[in-house]
Amino acid sequence: MHPFDTATELEPIAAGLVRGHTEPQWANMVGPFGGITAATILRALEVQPERVGEPVALTVNFAAPIGDGEFEIVTEPARSNRSNQHWIARLRQVGETKTTATALFGTRRDSWSDTEAEAPVAPTPEQTGPQKPSEFAPWLRNYDMRIVDGAAPADASQARAESTTTLWVRDDPARTLDHAALTGLCDVFFPRVFLRRGGFVPAGTISLTIYFHADHRQLRIVGEDFVLGRARANHFGGGYFDQSATMWSRGGALLATTHQIVYFKG
Amino acid sequence: MHPFDTATELEPIAAGLVRGHTEPQWANMVGPFGGITAATILRALEVQPERVGEPVALTVNFAAPIGDGEFEIVTEPARSNRSNQHWIARLRQVGETKTTATALFGTRRDSWSDTEAEAPVAPTPEQTGPQKPSEFAPWLRNYDMRIVDGAAPADASQARAESTTTLWVRDDPARTLDHAALTGLCDVFFPRVFLRRGGFVPAGTISLTIYFHADHRQLRIVGEDFVLGRARANHFGGGYFDQSATMWSRGGALLATTHQIVYFKG
Repeated sequence: MHPFDTATELEPIAAGLVRGHTEPQWANMVGPFGGITAATILRALEVQPERVGEPVALTVNFAAPIGDGEFEIVTEPARSNRSNQHWIARLRQVGETKTTATALFGTRRDSWSDTEAEAPVAPTPEQTGPQKPSEFAPWLRNYDMRIVDGAAPADASQARAESTTTLWVRDDPARTLDHAALTGLCDVFFPRVFLRRGGFVPAGTISLTIYFHADHRQLRIVGEDFVLGRARANHFGGGYFDQSATMWSRGGALLATTHQIVYFKG
Repeated sequence: MHPFDTATELEPIAAGLVRGHTEPQWANMVGPFGGITAATILRALEVQPERVGEPVALTVNFAAPIGDGEFEIVTEPARSNRSNQHWIARLRQVGETKTTATALFGTRRDSWSDTEAEAPVAPTPEQTGPQKPSEFAPWLRNYDMRIVDGAAPADASQARAESTTTLWVRDDPARTLDHAALTGLCDVFFPRVFLRRGGFVPAGTISLTIYFHADHRQLRIVGEDFVLGRARANHFGGGYFDQSATMWSRGGALLATTHQIVYFKG
């Protein structure tokens, strides 16, 4: 089984209740990588028998660190309409809420379409070449990440005037893209404050929102290929910063836009 | 009482339960203006006795139209940490969930700060001059909105190649800015698809996220002054589009960044 599927595997317990477990190889500094938690919650919603349509929007709030071991995810269909469905989810351990989420599922219709966000101009992932995974945390070894520009600086002399990182990324080993995997990819960017301050600063995502633009067919076309992501902070202050990112297929399709607010010290 | 305060007035019913009511002057095409609903939910959280800190992030999901009359808002503290607090809220009418929300409150600390998002260059609100409110819906009369660029087009000949609107906005009559009022301002932009298609297209916000960068002191400094907002869509397709906006003080402080996903037909 692919490590991503192992980490997001869920056991049905009762109506609206599934059980999952943390995986050491997805560990972050404290608790699991946020992207795998968000992906697991999305999957907990996808497997509900009442679920209609595909993911359109997801907000995940990282309320407290998830401890090693089992957790349960409670899912509640808050509202079902003709073409969309709203969910509330929470991840608990020993009765304590660790993560909350809301999600919108919907059916996509043919409509006028256009992309205004600009795709990054970047060399191909092959031209960029493989890079040694950062030793920062175990979860990074689950991704083949090829930073085109804006790598994490080693020290303050490498601090930058702006916080943009552009990178190619895919699961490692390769795995066909789906909405859960794309959810993980949306959270792979190291904290933007590192780039600005030139090195490590304690930081953690508190709330993550993803707008999915691609349906399952478009994701299947991406297949096992790399996704091109670009992230940038908007504002730092008061101990928080927010980040916006776009995730693109090699062919230039905008797969998702994603935003997060991050706590930092320093 | 100011119309904004009338519309967001809440009566405490029980622990974690308040009652509110729609106001005809805040009506949109169907149900109330989403910004006033989001503001009312934020206020329902602000008045909770356990609430700690100030709003940092808010996500509101518009699950179904709110009917005229009373509604109740159920608030649940999902997790309280040392410096932040996570909430889940839902707005109900006759037992039916109409709106869901999650919110993050937190204490702000002194930290390194910087703004990377670029403030729009615009003439002052005085230079822009007052504009007749659109007759599109009653709620628009509650705002003094001065569009600098990107007004709603009258017909297809005015369709634009991109969807940016830049505008000054404040409550009308003027009212000192607070987080609830700023929440309303974050949702004043007409649907971006109008600009691209050149005219009216059925559309409605489904999910709205706000990251608040200003604390109550910074908002009090803005006082009754105009706020400068700029909104732009990222992607249209499958019957949905997403929009990102920034909200600025006249002095160039980034007060909030806000994102939404919108359903549209056409």
